[in-house]
Amino acid sequence: MIVALAGGVGGARLAVGLAAVLPPRSLTVVVNTGDDFEHLGFAISPDLDTVMYTLAGVNNPVTGWGRAQETWSFMSALEQLGGETWFRLGDRDLAVHAVRTSALRRGVSLSEITRMLASRFGIRHAVVPMSDSAVRTRVKTDRGELSFQDYFVRLRCRPRVEGFRFAGSRKARVPLVLQRIMRSGKVQAVVICPSNPYISIAPILSVPAIRAWIRKRDFPVIAVSPIVGGVALKGPAAKMMRELGSAATALGVVRYYGDRVDRWVIDQQDARLEHAIERERKAVLVTDTVMSSRGKSTRLAKRVVAFARTLASGKQ
Amino acid sequence: MIVALAGGVGGARLAVGLAAVLPPRSLTVVVNTGDDFEHLGFAISPDLDTVMYTLAGVNNPVTGWGRAQETWSFMSALEQLGGETWFRLGDRDLAVHAVRTSALRRGVSLSEITRMLASRFGIRHAVVPMSDSAVRTRVKTDRGELSFQDYFVRLRCRPRVEGFRFAGSRKARVPLVLQRIMRSGKVQAVVICPSNPYISIAPILSVPAIRAWIRKRDFPVIAVSPIVGGVALKGPAAKMMRELGSAATALGVVRYYGDRVDRWVIDQQDARLEHAIERERKAVLVTDTVMSSRGKSTRLAKRVVAFARTLASGKQ
Repeated sequence: MIVALAGGVGGARLAVGLAAVLPPRSLTVVVNTGDDFEHLGFAISPDLDTVMYTLAGVNNPVTGWGRAQETWSFMSALEQLGGETWFRLGDRDLAVHAVRTSALRRGVSLSEITRMLASRFGIRHAVVPMSDSAVRTRVKTDRGELSFQDYFVRLRCRPRVEGFRFAGSRKARVPLVLQRIMRSGKVQAVVICPSNPYISIAPILSVPAIRAWIRKRDFPVIAVSPIVGGVALKGPAAKMMRELGSAATALGVVRYYGDRVDRWVIDQQDARLEHAIERERKAVLVTDTVMSSRGKSTRLAKRVVAFARTLASGKQ
Repeated sequence: MIVALAGGVGGARLAVGLAAVLPPRSLTVVVNTGDDFEHLGFAISPDLDTVMYTLAGVNNPVTGWGRAQETWSFMSALEQLGGETWFRLGDRDLAVHAVRTSALRRGVSLSEITRMLASRFGIRHAVVPMSDSAVRTRVKTDRGELSFQDYFVRLRCRPRVEGFRFAGSRKARVPLVLQRIMRSGKVQAVVICPSNPYISIAPILSVPAIRAWIRKRDFPVIAVSPIVGGVALKGPAAKMMRELGSAATALGVVRYYGDRVDRWVIDQQDARLEHAIERERKAVLVTDTVMSSRGKSTRLAKRVVAFARTLASGKQ
């Protein structure tokens, strides 16, 4: 069993590769829910949806969020009514939010709803939210503390970041299925996907039970750098690193994660950083990490899994 | 000031005519909310929307509900997810439900939301829900008591009707704007639109303050028969009348309303009933009541208003 920690696009793409090389019972994708929010009465889980849509092959590859072959009648009608349109909701996407929202109101857990939705989308691997209770990423900025979507979508990541807070994480309710996996002793490796360290992975690691499980691990943690050639392939990771006084490089990410990661996968463009990372006492795999197609996701996943299994059996 | 009581299609069509012949300050359309319900987390007000869409000219003239130039992506995506699809929600229609639902959750009253939505749709006449608190029509049938939408949409009016109940009507919160009108003494007439007597008009009259106001009236109540030539132009009114042991004719409707109506407008097809209705001590106007176009709605409204004003000044 391999457990992958994922946020949005980067996480979803590696999840697609992992799902292509691992049987359903050997992969669990744990997804950030720190971005979740209520909007227009809908319970929206952006990262869960991105992972789910991408695994199902119904994602919009251009925007990185939402569904392919989407229509926008709801949004255009909402605009005519003077409604809030800063968060774009496609008509087909809305069906997922409506099903999730009404099930949550009936008392169904987010993990159970996600299992049901994923199954309807024909996804055979487990996709599990990091928490069944609300954990909400708050962004501390030069304009004060902001809710995540205010910062990310409404203000387009313009405010200068000073830190983060994950409201509700201390009391997070880890889904039963994930509790069972953590107790099973059968996890071969945890793979940290190339997602934003601060806003995709840190929320997951802020959940006490998950953090403790990783701290006391008897399996390796392998991370794929989300920074390639000094830039984030998607999103504000590099900008955040600079604002927080860190180098926006793969080495900066290595130092950020510190002891929580044992082995690193970095892109061939960053090969020159290999020795510096090894000096941090981390094993390094240098390969092509840019997942611009499903084929490339699968090739990267194969290498990551092989790297994980080598480590799991004590070899390096 | 004329106050019109309206349900769905028939009420909406007469409202269009009345709005064409009366200035905004001289017409208030009070709309049934007994059909309102929560579905997939949305607060849905079918009659308010039909009246609003029809007044705005954006209604779907074929279905009698929903909007013109509608798209159905949400519904098709919902179907793929195994969601409930018996109540059809168009993508553009959904925007209205989402705006209404989120405003209700913020504590805004239904009447205030309706005023705001109507204004966005360019409607200048007042459209007011009969109640700001929930009143829910329950249909007593041979299959037990059903919620209105279960009976009306899901079971397509197939169960045999035995009676009705308007849950919440005793404690209904009459919108302030309507309370003010009722207290003003400026109402010249109440027009009961050709809507279903049992499920469109009876819920409005079940609200104690409205019922008492009409009982003690110093203005005439004019009703337009929803039954023409022994059939209801839309909906189950005739079927309900037969099931409840009444004649499915304009005369049956006259007897159903009894003392609550002073004067009747019936269709020329029912001219033979004129004397029978006069024997019930009601004045009768026989005219073309079939509103198959906006022009015909306006012509009927003109006659109804003239009939009302004649009465208001004591002439018959």
